[in-house]
Amino acid sequence: MNDARAVAAEFIGSLILFATVVGSGVMAQRLAGGNDAVALIGNTAATGAVLFVLITLLGPISGAHFNPAVTLLLGARKRWLPFIAAQLLGGIIGVLIVHAMFDMPLIEHGTKIRTGIGQWIGEFVATFGLLFTIVVGSRQRPDAVPALVALWIVAGYWFTSSTSFANPAITIARALTDSFAGIRPVDTPGFILAQFAGAWVAVRFANWLAPPTPIPSR
Amino acid sequence: MNDARAVAAEFIGSLILFATVVGSGVMAQRLAGGNDAVALIGNTAATGAVLFVLITLLGPISGAHFNPAVTLLLGARKRWLPFIAAQLLGGIIGVLIVHAMFDMPLIEHGTKIRTGIGQWIGEFVATFGLLFTIVVGSRQRPDAVPALVALWIVAGYWFTSSTSFANPAITIARALTDSFAGIRPVDTPGFILAQFAGAWVAVRFANWLAPPTPIPSR
Amino acid sequence: MNDARAVAAEFIGSLILFATVVGSGVMAQRLAGGNDAVALIGNTAATGAVLFVLITLLGPISGAHFNPAVTLLLGARKRWLPFIAAQLLGGIIGVLIVHAMFDMPLIEHGTKIRTGIGQWIGEFVATFGLLFTIVVGSRQRPDAVPALVALWIVAGYWFTSSTSFANPAITIARALTDSFAGIRPVDTPGFILAQFAGAWVAVRFANWLAPPTPIPSR
Amino acid sequence: MNDARAVAAEFIGSLILFATVVGSGVMAQRLAGGNDAVALIGNTAATGAVLFVLITLLGPISGAHFNPAVTLLLGARKRWLPFIAAQLLGGIIGVLIVHAMFDMPLIEHGTKIRTGIGQWIGEFVATFGLLFTIVVGSRQRPDAVPALVALWIVAGYWFTSSTSFANPAITIARALTDSFAGIRPVDTPGFILAQFAGAWVAVRFANWLAPPTPIPSR
Repeated sequence: MNDARAVAAEFIGSLILFATVVGSGVMAQRLAGGNDAVALIGNTAATGAVLFVLITLLGPISGAHFNPAVTLLLGARKRWLPFIAAQLLGGIIGVLIVHAMFDMPLIEHGTKIRTGIGQWIGEFVATFGLLFTIVVGSRQRPDAVPALVALWIVAGYWFTSSTSFANPAITIARALTDSFAGIRPVDTPGFILAQFAGAWVAVRFANWLAPPTPIPSR
Repeated sequence: MNDARAVAAEFIGSLILFATVVGSGVMAQRLAGGNDAVALIGNTAATGAVLFVLITLLGPISGAHFNPAVTLLLGARKRWLPFIAAQLLGGIIGVLIVHAMFDMPLIEHGTKIRTGIGQWIGEFVATFGLLFTIVVGSRQRPDAVPALVALWIVAGYWFTSSTSFANPAITIARALTDSFAGIRPVDTPGFILAQFAGAWVAVRFANWLAPPTPIPSR
Repeated sequence: MNDARAVAAEFIGSLILFATVVGSGVMAQRLAGGNDAVALIGNTAATGAVLFVLITLLGPISGAHFNPAVTLLLGARKRWLPFIAAQLLGGIIGVLIVHAMFDMPLIEHGTKIRTGIGQWIGEFVATFGLLFTIVVGSRQRPDAVPALVALWIVAGYWFTSSTSFANPAITIARALTDSFAGIRPVDTPGFILAQFAGAWVAVRFANWLAPPTPIPSR
Repeated sequence: MNDARAVAAEFIGSLILFATVVGSGVMAQRLAGGNDAVALIGNTAATGAVLFVLITLLGPISGAHFNPAVTLLLGARKRWLPFIAAQLLGGIIGVLIVHAMFDMPLIEHGTKIRTGIGQWIGEFVATFGLLFTIVVGSRQRPDAVPALVALWIVAGYWFTSSTSFANPAITIARALTDSFAGIRPVDTPGFILAQFAGAWVAVRFANWLAPPTPIPSR
């Protein structure tokens, strides 16, 4: 793997992914006339669609992590620092581009309250499912991983109380916007801790349930 | 097939599936401002997405039943008891997790009235279609079964009057929540009877229409 | 091909398809609180999903026509009479089952006005596209035909002024319901004529554009 | 490649694509009761669905450009004039057919204001992503290009401030309708310049990130 290209793939992928999450939230909320479920439908469609595109395109180049929890728990550990730096930098630039596109201040300060045990369980479940999907999916149907990850997040946006951030880098980037997808900076540590806990449990459980050597088929 | 892993797959799959069905109903109804069609769109997207993910991931491990009607009519009959126990236990824990995530009482009592000949026909049709899809799909395009089952349920949520429970275990679990997806406990036996009737007819009809030996292609 | 099985496949496929189109219209309109665009989203999702399922399952058995225009212009001509009879009979029974599920009178009389040059152009375009998709798709990517037909109808529901009936049998069956998907009986001949005209032009054009012998790849 | 067939494919593909974009906008706005997010959901579903269909069907015949930016930057340069003429002529006829279907004046004059740096960044991002998706996708997963392009546009409709025209020909055609998808004629040059700029940068970047010779797999 070419390291410069892999880091660039993490950068551009995180930029586009985070811009889609935040930008579709801005657009959806502006158009939805106060009906947050309608806004969430648009937000979900855009996020799921772009995840499928980005993982298909960039998976062969960098693994398409876009997520420090994936890089630290599953990725090549020697490259964790440039990867996470690229994810954070790309993601923050993605949020700035959204603010520029929608004529908003370039940097904002999230004000949406996202805290409490219920939402922390939500992030645990969302990130557990994300890592479980990646590990088991890579063993059972590697060609389907882009669709599997996209659809896991589609489901998570709706059934977890926290709407499935499931990603420490996007949690930080979303603290920089005061829009539909925003989060108060003070609430980010709780989310990030819950995400790493869910990710860690998922990898252990997935390695027992679907070990790397192929299990006998029925 | 490893039995402990297969039972664990039924447990975790039912937990996540039932949590998605109930949790996305809670989220959708909270956000939809009283427009139940908007709520059903979110509920449908989440359910269809997670079904594709779970059947793809867990199909090779346990068959991905998550449903006593599938286990009894199609599954390995020797393992029916641990499978059904795992489905019920996993599903009920999934509902408890949803209630914890959304700061609701851990166990509720369904109050949504779901009874009458129209809805029983709905469950018959929904479960007939589910088993017909699994049996014929497994013979014509086994790789497409996760998408086929997910899309059958997407359609069923909208065109059956009962919104396609199509699963005795989820019927019982949904009696423990007083939310969008809930059902009165007293209404569950009618649903479950209709489900088994539809499932039984479907297997007979599918075995005649698409017998196990390959039919000659056109 | 086994003739009894093929005719049965046309019967059960038309029954489920037409029930989905009409039933999801009833459900959507009941829940949508007067917002017909929200209702059409539900109607579209259900129709697209069930088309993918039914064509995948029944294509290898009967060709999965469910449509007299397809049977007459593309199907085995010797079997047109039992096929069309099965489509009409199955489709009408599908509508009756919907009415039973939703506690409506078993047979109704459509009152929705669907007439005029604009809507006839709509049906011409919708059926042109359907036959064009089937003919060209069967030559370029036969495995993708279920998705192609489903997605053509998803698009047609939204961009044609007539919402893409594109099927003489479903036009007749929809004259028997006074719901979202209904049509006045007096308006059916105009729709059916426009459908056959679009289908005929499409087959001629598709045979020129993508002839049966493979065209040289780039 | 047969040139007459390739030009005809660009003509009919652009006609159907542009008719879908504009027609679904008309339908969605008429039904949505003033909720533009609901209208955009219908518009998005129709556009994404028809893109998958048209690129699958016509890709093997002409490359399925439907877009002068694609033809000029990626297509066979000898044929650019007939291709672009076919895209413009087909697209405009598509808009006329929509107006005929919906009983509107055949030619209108767009009045929707779409200008300013924010929207120009939107078009740059949208067309960057489109060309990036086509170039990298063609190298990593050529069979997935129809889904990748369709889903990129689904995301773009929601996260770019300009709703992702991403196509000079459709920009011109949409200046001829005074509906949901319309644009003021005076605003088209800014959009087209931004589109070509994004396309040019994308091709350069994609050729560095995923060069034509296969990169070593991990």
